Amino acid sequence: MKVCKFGGTSLASAEQMRKVASIIRADQERRIVVVSAPGKRFKEDTKVTDLLISLAEAALSNGDVEDALRLVVSRYEQIALELKLSVEIIDIIKEDLAARLTMKDDGDREFMDLMKASGEDNCAKLFSFYLQSLGVEAEYIDPKEVGLLVSKEYGNAQVLPEAYENLHRELRNKEGILVFPGFFGYTPEGTLITFPRGGSDITGSIVAAAVEANLYENFTDVDSVFAANPNVVQNPVEIKELTYREMRELSYAGFSVFHDEALIPAFKKGVPVSIKNTNNPGAPGTMVVNERNYMINPVVGIASDSGFSTIYVRKYLMNREVGFGRHLLEIIEDEGLSYEHMPSGIDDTSIILRSSQLTLEMEQRIVQRIEQELQVDDVHVEHDFAMVMVVGEGMRKMVGITAKATTGLARAGVNLHMINQGSSEVSMVFGVKTEDADKAVRELYNDFFVPTKSPVH
Amino acid sequence: MKVCKFGGTSLASAEQMRKVASIIRADQERRIVVVSAPGKRFKEDTKVTDLLISLAEAALSNGDVEDALRLVVSRYEQIALELKLSVEIIDIIKEDLAARLTMKDDGDREFMDLMKASGEDNCAKLFSFYLQSLGVEAEYIDPKEVGLLVSKEYGNAQVLPEAYENLHRELRNKEGILVFPGFFGYTPEGTLITFPRGGSDITGSIVAAAVEANLYENFTDVDSVFAANPNVVQNPVEIKELTYREMRELSYAGFSVFHDEALIPAFKKGVPVSIKNTNNPGAPGTMVVNERNYMINPVVGIASDSGFSTIYVRKYLMNREVGFGRHLLEIIEDEGLSYEHMPSGIDDTSIILRSSQLTLEMEQRIVQRIEQELQVDDVHVEHDFAMVMVVGEGMRKMVGITAKATTGLARAGVNLHMINQGSSEVSMVFGVKTEDADKAVRELYNDFFVPTKSPVH
Repeated sequence: MKVCKFGGTSLASAEQMRKVASIIRADQERRIVVVSAPGKRFKEDTKVTDLLISLAEAALSNGDVEDALRLVVSRYEQIALELKLSVEIIDIIKEDLAARLTMKDDGDREFMDLMKASGEDNCAKLFSFYLQSLGVEAEYIDPKEVGLLVSKEYGNAQVLPEAYENLHRELRNKEGILVFPGFFGYTPEGTLITFPRGGSDITGSIVAAAVEANLYENFTDVDSVFAANPNVVQNPVEIKELTYREMRELSYAGFSVFHDEALIPAFKKGVPVSIKNTNNPGAPGTMVVNERNYMINPVVGIASDSGFSTIYVRKYLMNREVGFGRHLLEIIEDEGLSYEHMPSGIDDTSIILRSSQLTLEMEQRIVQRIEQELQVDDVHVEHDFAMVMVVGEGMRKMVGITAKATTGLARAGVNLHMINQGSSEVSMVFGVKTEDADKAVRELYNDFFVPTKSPVH
Repeated sequence: MKVCKFGGTSLASAEQMRKVASIIRADQERRIVVVSAPGKRFKEDTKVTDLLISLAEAALSNGDVEDALRLVVSRYEQIALELKLSVEIIDIIKEDLAARLTMKDDGDREFMDLMKASGEDNCAKLFSFYLQSLGVEAEYIDPKEVGLLVSKEYGNAQVLPEAYENLHRELRNKEGILVFPGFFGYTPEGTLITFPRGGSDITGSIVAAAVEANLYENFTDVDSVFAANPNVVQNPVEIKELTYREMRELSYAGFSVFHDEALIPAFKKGVPVSIKNTNNPGAPGTMVVNERNYMINPVVGIASDSGFSTIYVRKYLMNREVGFGRHLLEIIEDEGLSYEHMPSGIDDTSIILRSSQLTLEMEQRIVQRIEQELQVDDVHVEHDFAMVMVVGEGMRKMVGITAKATTGLARAGVNLHMINQGSSEVSMVFGVKTEDADKAVRELYNDFFVPTKSPVH
């Protein structure tokens, strides 16, 4: 049994839905289809989810909802018309939205989750309707009925352990194609809650794990995962195979194909994941696996992410002071901040964190507290750092890889503000100024992926 | 005005004392002489300080002190005889030791400090006596009389700020050569307390800072500081000049010429330090300065220190958990442990600390608490790591240096378990298994200090 998940662009139009149906019908193993809400059809288009957010906001501010509602319904209507579906499905969707709109007094966050989730939910209904119209045995699955239970954290649902048993029991015995809406689940009390970013990927991964699928196919709009960001590196190579851990590290550092946490349920059950292109289903795509032979390609990708700041602290003999690091991190914690790295010298240490968390007031409070409570010789905050990562299971043989990477960066004149390699066996992180990040990625890509490069001395 | 400090081997015998006197007389600027206790004359010899510890232990256990006392006195006696000094000085030393031995009921630690410090104190008396015998205007200085005030931490005295004013006032106006015993000071209440390891270096540094000397000459038994440990690298080059920061980093990682903390008082007052050889005073030695031109020699030395352990912790999404790092360090702190480095990946982090602090029970408690309180996916402790450091102010241009170092280590087949470069601008730390440390040092030495090495591809 295969679980297939289709992203928003794969379901943005009638034409796209036809492709999806054809993909499903091409392989009898493709039994469960997890769908996103219809996404953008063209660059300036608006995703259905965003239309739904506007609709919810209009309702919450007691404004006129008619226009906003019409924009949502018309997206489904166009698809239904082009697919020559009975008007019945549009009535179902209209009724569904009307019913949801009556719930706006249940709390803003609850209402927002309820409205957003309708994008996936109605898309699943429409798509199952379409499959049926093609003579395919298909069924819309209500996550509530099959027990996809989650925690009550609005917009940040965490799956509950019993959800797996429920889904296993309910889905394994059904016949035909099961069309499952992504992005949301229900608390044991019956409240709808959405998953965080990448929500449909999460649903797909949970369902694949629950039914113990032999493959989780994640259909998106690219042929594969690339070894570097195509906006930075021209025509980067495609990654045929990478491990879960490599995927996670790449996702962390800005690879947007996949939301990394989404993979965890499938990973834990050992379900392999295939990333494929709805628009080119014959392309081999990228396989995400548990183990790979990394002797040939020790490095799988080069990633970078910007938006980091550094809190630099220097104090003579700090590492003799029992409790210094703990106290420093306590000050960070008191501001509700999480940090990424904490490289240290003998008498100094830096805390590297995402700048988006920081406000100027926080910075000032932190600096003041560090000065006063830790009696340091120096403390200051610096901004505009990027983390550039070399990712690959072959990092285990990291001696040569470190040498290659740092030699390349030296050649490119990239100044390294930090190197962190120690814990992870799968990646090496270089801290650089944001302005150097693209240059660093291009150089590292050349070093590890362009075989015919002549040596430069 | 120059302050000269002479170590134990420089004062171990009459012959050595003659060299010291000759060095003092060769430069009128050499006005203050800080002395250690007589050290070893030959490899199997016993330092006077160790004889004094045996004597103190005998006294504390109410054993016979006569033999132990005779061993101490005879060392001074031999020197005095060979230098043809009047027997008066030996009577002074005997009386002093007898008086100290009556104090054994003041508390074991107080008594131990008092006995140990007599080594330096009586050496200073003897040496000033010798200078006088040569017709040199010389005076023994009692640290109590000139106000070398310290905190009441037995064996770990910290100088009090007012000591500098006292010493400045008392010493600047004296005439002739001032012979100052190293290693101890007095609390404001008058209790003798010794400094930690490297104590006479600390005294010299404090005195040099207090009198605002234009040079602090530290005489030892080597011509200079070497760029690597001569026991690991054959005939390493001599370091002509290095900065305080470089000295500190080298000392930290096992360079034993100088106890790094000793330099701080001189450093803070901007007094340059010269490391010279009593047995070859004409050699240029090594200058420790505030700033140097590091364009020619970006790297000044390669050091290594073994005896490190790693506590490895892995938990999925740990860096999203506000407070995770703080909680982890709190567990370490609760065991009274200080740590050196804390490199981190995305989902894992390691705490690197000195193994000597750890017991098996501590390890077990730490692992158990980390498992239970932090709900981690993995935690384990590994031993036998060494930290290999490349030290140099030129690290600011670290791109090329990192590349050079890691390329060398790759060539030597040294597996890197950690790289920490980020905070310190003066060093780069490589974590390796202890068995690889010497190989790493030799390779790095070759890379940075052997100019004619042919490239290896």
